[in-house]
Amino acid sequence: MKPLPILLLLTCLSATTASTYAADTPAARPRARDAGIVIGTLPTGAHNAITDVDGVGVGHATLAQGTRFNTGVTAIVPHRGNTYLERVPAAIVVGNGFGKLLGVTQVQELGELESPVLLTGTLGVWKVADALTTHLLAQPGMAQVRSINPVVGETNDGYLSDIRARPVGPAQVEQALARLSYAGVEEGAVGAGAGTVAFGWKGGIGTSSRRLEATQGGHTVGVLVQSNFGGHLTVAGVPVWKSLPDPAQVARALQPAPSTGDGSIMIVIATDAPLDPAALRRLASRALTGLARTGSDMSNGSGDYVIAFSTAKQNRRRRDVAVQPAASVANDAMTPLFQATAEATEEAILNSLLRAHTVRGHQGTAPELPLAPLLQALDAAGARTATP
Amino acid sequence: MKPLPILLLLTCLSATTASTYAADTPAARPRARDAGIVIGTLPTGAHNAITDVDGVGVGHATLAQGTRFNTGVTAIVPHRGNTYLERVPAAIVVGNGFGKLLGVTQVQELGELESPVLLTGTLGVWKVADALTTHLLAQPGMAQVRSINPVVGETNDGYLSDIRARPVGPAQVEQALARLSYAGVEEGAVGAGAGTVAFGWKGGIGTSSRRLEATQGGHTVGVLVQSNFGGHLTVAGVPVWKSLPDPAQVARALQPAPSTGDGSIMIVIATDAPLDPAALRRLASRALTGLARTGSDMSNGSGDYVIAFSTAKQNRRRRDVAVQPAASVANDAMTPLFQATAEATEEAILNSLLRAHTVRGHQGTAPELPLAPLLQALDAAGARTATP
Amino acid sequence: MKPLPILLLLTCLSATTASTYAADTPAARPRARDAGIVIGTLPTGAHNAITDVDGVGVGHATLAQGTRFNTGVTAIVPHRGNTYLERVPAAIVVGNGFGKLLGVTQVQELGELESPVLLTGTLGVWKVADALTTHLLAQPGMAQVRSINPVVGETNDGYLSDIRARPVGPAQVEQALARLSYAGVEEGAVGAGAGTVAFGWKGGIGTSSRRLEATQGGHTVGVLVQSNFGGHLTVAGVPVWKSLPDPAQVARALQPAPSTGDGSIMIVIATDAPLDPAALRRLASRALTGLARTGSDMSNGSGDYVIAFSTAKQNRRRRDVAVQPAASVANDAMTPLFQATAEATEEAILNSLLRAHTVRGHQGTAPELPLAPLLQALDAAGARTATP
Amino acid sequence: MKPLPILLLLTCLSATTASTYAADTPAARPRARDAGIVIGTLPTGAHNAITDVDGVGVGHATLAQGTRFNTGVTAIVPHRGNTYLERVPAAIVVGNGFGKLLGVTQVQELGELESPVLLTGTLGVWKVADALTTHLLAQPGMAQVRSINPVVGETNDGYLSDIRARPVGPAQVEQALARLSYAGVEEGAVGAGAGTVAFGWKGGIGTSSRRLEATQGGHTVGVLVQSNFGGHLTVAGVPVWKSLPDPAQVARALQPAPSTGDGSIMIVIATDAPLDPAALRRLASRALTGLARTGSDMSNGSGDYVIAFSTAKQNRRRRDVAVQPAASVANDAMTPLFQATAEATEEAILNSLLRAHTVRGHQGTAPELPLAPLLQALDAAGARTATP
Repeated sequence: MKPLPILLLLTCLSATTASTYAADTPAARPRARDAGIVIGTLPTGAHNAITDVDGVGVGHATLAQGTRFNTGVTAIVPHRGNTYLERVPAAIVVGNGFGKLLGVTQVQELGELESPVLLTGTLGVWKVADALTTHLLAQPGMAQVRSINPVVGETNDGYLSDIRARPVGPAQVEQALARLSYAGVEEGAVGAGAGTVAFGWKGGIGTSSRRLEATQGGHTVGVLVQSNFGGHLTVAGVPVWKSLPDPAQVARALQPAPSTGDGSIMIVIATDAPLDPAALRRLASRALTGLARTGSDMSNGSGDYVIAFSTAKQNRRRRDVAVQPAASVANDAMTPLFQATAEATEEAILNSLLRAHTVRGHQGTAPELPLAPLLQALDAAGARTATP
Repeated sequence: MKPLPILLLLTCLSATTASTYAADTPAARPRARDAGIVIGTLPTGAHNAITDVDGVGVGHATLAQGTRFNTGVTAIVPHRGNTYLERVPAAIVVGNGFGKLLGVTQVQELGELESPVLLTGTLGVWKVADALTTHLLAQPGMAQVRSINPVVGETNDGYLSDIRARPVGPAQVEQALARLSYAGVEEGAVGAGAGTVAFGWKGGIGTSSRRLEATQGGHTVGVLVQSNFGGHLTVAGVPVWKSLPDPAQVARALQPAPSTGDGSIMIVIATDAPLDPAALRRLASRALTGLARTGSDMSNGSGDYVIAFSTAKQNRRRRDVAVQPAASVANDAMTPLFQATAEATEEAILNSLLRAHTVRGHQGTAPELPLAPLLQALDAAGARTATP
Repeated sequence: MKPLPILLLLTCLSATTASTYAADTPAARPRARDAGIVIGTLPTGAHNAITDVDGVGVGHATLAQGTRFNTGVTAIVPHRGNTYLERVPAAIVVGNGFGKLLGVTQVQELGELESPVLLTGTLGVWKVADALTTHLLAQPGMAQVRSINPVVGETNDGYLSDIRARPVGPAQVEQALARLSYAGVEEGAVGAGAGTVAFGWKGGIGTSSRRLEATQGGHTVGVLVQSNFGGHLTVAGVPVWKSLPDPAQVARALQPAPSTGDGSIMIVIATDAPLDPAALRRLASRALTGLARTGSDMSNGSGDYVIAFSTAKQNRRRRDVAVQPAASVANDAMTPLFQATAEATEEAILNSLLRAHTVRGHQGTAPELPLAPLLQALDAAGARTATP
Repeated sequence: MKPLPILLLLTCLSATTASTYAADTPAARPRARDAGIVIGTLPTGAHNAITDVDGVGVGHATLAQGTRFNTGVTAIVPHRGNTYLERVPAAIVVGNGFGKLLGVTQVQELGELESPVLLTGTLGVWKVADALTTHLLAQPGMAQVRSINPVVGETNDGYLSDIRARPVGPAQVEQALARLSYAGVEEGAVGAGAGTVAFGWKGGIGTSSRRLEATQGGHTVGVLVQSNFGGHLTVAGVPVWKSLPDPAQVARALQPAPSTGDGSIMIVIATDAPLDPAALRRLASRALTGLARTGSDMSNGSGDYVIAFSTAKQNRRRRDVAVQPAASVANDAMTPLFQATAEATEEAILNSLLRAHTVRGHQGTAPELPLAPLLQALDAAGARTATP
């Protein structure tokens, strides 16, 4: 990466003097489309978010305390009802399994999701799963339940947060589940994204959606990511890593230890297309296509996981039915859904970077992706397809 | 294994002097139930055969020429129509993958079977698949088809047949597909079972079925096997290998080179239960339970494969439909189907041994399982649960 | 199952009036071999236990409080050193994924185990994993570790223990890890087996081992199980479920609600054979063969998991090495190891039942497997191959 | 895609009037690097080809007869010896399984490759596998071999070749195996690539390699592809599909029926890095990263397969050894190999397009990728990093 000009460094520094990210501060940074960056060819849903899939809700609980803790919980619910009593078909695909996704084998065996999906930091997964179990067992109608399969994923926020202290617990789980939004989704350094780092820059939560034409079924695909991985940052095909300052150098200017850049990504896909578990597995694997296009090589240390579920009403699963009626998009009609998944995943990752502010944390600082040189590089490549 | 008494040897020899098996000879050997051997607790279908699943047909072509060739083709069709134009949901499970099952990845990806399932000897799979393709491309409505996925499995009949000569081809494929039976199924040293050896005895084709009570869904599960594997033969739980003569010794008395006993098994499961591909995968894996109970350790050299499909009308797949209806037995109602699969697989394997006659072949002789000591051992253990 | 004679019932009751199981009471019940039940043909190791694999240790912590809690933790360590710093190659096979095995994807991706294996009750896995993490992070040399992958499995002890209360935590984890035995292993209703039920009878922890002849490599395979599943109990091939009293009826005579009999099994395999992760995956899948022979149909509700690791010194993995030397038993030499695994698994399950005492618990009572009718059934079948 | 200007169309037409591709004509079209297109950051090997991995050979047999047949066979051998007697560790990853890769389950089970890898057209795989078996059985030392696992892959060349006629057989197999090159590799419309179409343009065989620094192990990774898939063509990150003429329109100007653009890709990876089968599986999955970056969404109809093998001498497998020594790059050192795989795959695909000439075939014409507008689009984006 090319050396960092002094002037630019100053710009970065000034941009980051806003200090540690506060979840309640209105963020000034744009989403990809606001900056004229359009991924792919398909139109987005109304909010360009996973919540464009009707019934899907997202809630965050951010734990940001000084520089010591930058972590949290993000919850994704497939519908407004009781997820255990009314299950959705689901699949999980493991891109690179160096990570933890609690609940994986049961989802793969039964093809159904019976809990919200919760994301958090690596060493917090067990407390979060335990707290989610407490939450679910306390719901109406659950008094006799003696087995449950909470799905909890993670990426490692140990650079910005004191991960060994494992501060996240029931309070964050309850908060994330209490603050569900079914419309816009807060992105960047929030919830489970509070302490993550991607391509050396501050990453976090990002989301995007695609809506197919009626002739292609009219279905919506929504994606939410927790970005924390490395590689060579590529935006809309442009190898911007070549022209951007070295994030380690930016970070070092602020604080000594730059992130090692080896991390993970959790990808959650929701769709209202009626899909059986086998079709959902196929869909989930296409998210890795979008991931690759952002410059990830799926490095050894990166735990890359995809969870996909279908909210289609006719495919809901109840335990009191011997034969469940269902429908599934035919294999030959799946390709547009694959494209939608790839596009929304790529854009969700970009949104996670674009919306994230600089965060000073436990081991060092993760600078926000600098907008000016980014947009300059994109413009030089003619890669901004629309003006805000 | 205990030494072979002279008298018994003579009995075996006399039993086997009936000379090489001829496919058209009415076989005097009993099926398991005819000999009072009952596996499990569930009732069978009308023919105790895979054809008890309505629409499923089985055809054999046996190539038996002197001692040089003992091989052939067995065809299983899921319904009477065009399998390519009207597909059935399907799954394949690989117990031990040291073998060849052509077509495996497409069935696993798309969850559908678009050809009959053909079984043959190891080095014949490619010619058989090519001939099956010729056959299918020539069917009405197939003039524009430029891709097809024939499913062809094998076990190694190289002990009884000159396998390197690869004598099986279009003639056997056409014959097997022309001689479909939708009722009783010929078992033993017939079709793809003409040259196989199991537990050192002559194995071959065997079949069995189970029918669930109406309260369990009333579904039928049928299994057909091509047995060619080794282990410690166990019948109805009785370790009969301890009291039976050593098959190698029996074989040696007839001809010098006994079989090495390392082989494979192909297991085909049909059911009329409505199952989606994910449920069929679960079902298929339970066949290995039945296999284990016959004494197989799934040795290194054994290619153990299971193909399962559902014939339920509402789950048929046509390429001109964008969203296909698909019902599936709920996970919680699957257990009786699992039990049916395990039981029918175990009994089908026993039938393959019981119905097979001694075959003298290319490298040596595979003696038939001697009935007298077998039944004696079972009686001593009180393991014959019914008298014929 | 046949109706329970009054006399037998009285015998059972009297046998079980010994009250709730206490971990420190010397158990009078025999292991399989002590009762003349021999599984398979291979010799055992010195203790007929997983600890016959040099360096492997097993520790239990039992939480038994009145009838409310019958649960606990069982720990298996691959060697006496730091499992994180000196890893062993490992594989995990999922027979039926309706369960939880924390850490599964990382073991499958990296092919290595970096923590002890802990077993507990279903809803306790997360607290146990969190406590194990605490324990490991506190070890010498671990101060900089910010990611770890504890492997924790479970079966559901909710019939005998108030599972929703989740009483197990750091105390039990520390105790199990502090009480490691490298010789004999306590079996039955102990540790993670305190509250489990198998075939309607009290199950629990069981272990067994096999040692191959020098000509077969001289390797040892050890197995430990936590049995909690259902089916038709079969001992040494004898369908003893037909002649045993109905455990539900026995249980009902003691307390109203019999167990539903749908459960799970965790199987841990250790071997000193040098095996790479791919070979370990093959080995692990053969444990399901032994499971099948005990009468399990791998029902829908049964989470059947196998974890296998190799303790061979030359295959240890350290993070500071760029290319790790390794050796692996050739595929063609694997079959004896497969047989050893199947035999030891079957015998370990029998040991778990034979050694377990009756336990009165939260929802009802799990009677111990009655010895007299069992041995009578085995004798009738001539299935006791040796007298104690 | 934007409408095709008349002038450009004329240019394309004139560029393609060179008529049907002849395998022996020296090709004037550049490889990617010759045109200043550099993918990634790692240096290539001497030939920038899979043959940069020492011992790996590639041979082509092209069957081009008028417009009716444009098909053939491409052979890749892992070393100069007998592949059956001296096996290499191998893995296969299925990206999208809508295709045929004969031999897949045995490679996945045993982790070894025992035949050359052959590529051809879809309906020719079985004849090719049968012919390869004939070839291998006839080699010295193979007289007693009665089982073999030929690995044969395919993509569908039915647009340019009369695929239903299945013209490829022993002649092409023998020719490909007789014409092995261990240095430069012919690319484009040659061998198994004679009739394939990618992104609507003429695709075919392409290859590339990467060589790691000594500090990263100094290993070489080579990739060869048979490209036949669709998507939105992206070159070095530039969405050139937006500025290129519509290939269907170009094709239509020459002949009526444009290709449907739904196809497949076979990817073969060789490396001299010592890798065990589990590590090779990880490596193979990273090829899909490179595929994604060229614009593939891995559509429903695309059979996307990756075969990877290691040529490291110490990892060769012989059947007469009970314990095989082996070494494997540690997981933590794998990332550079992952990057090398992704880069070489992307560049191999570009080479397959760049080197291919227009081919007029059975159902229509596949125009060559037009260089002028391609380079113009790349220059506009500043994406040519070097001048030829």
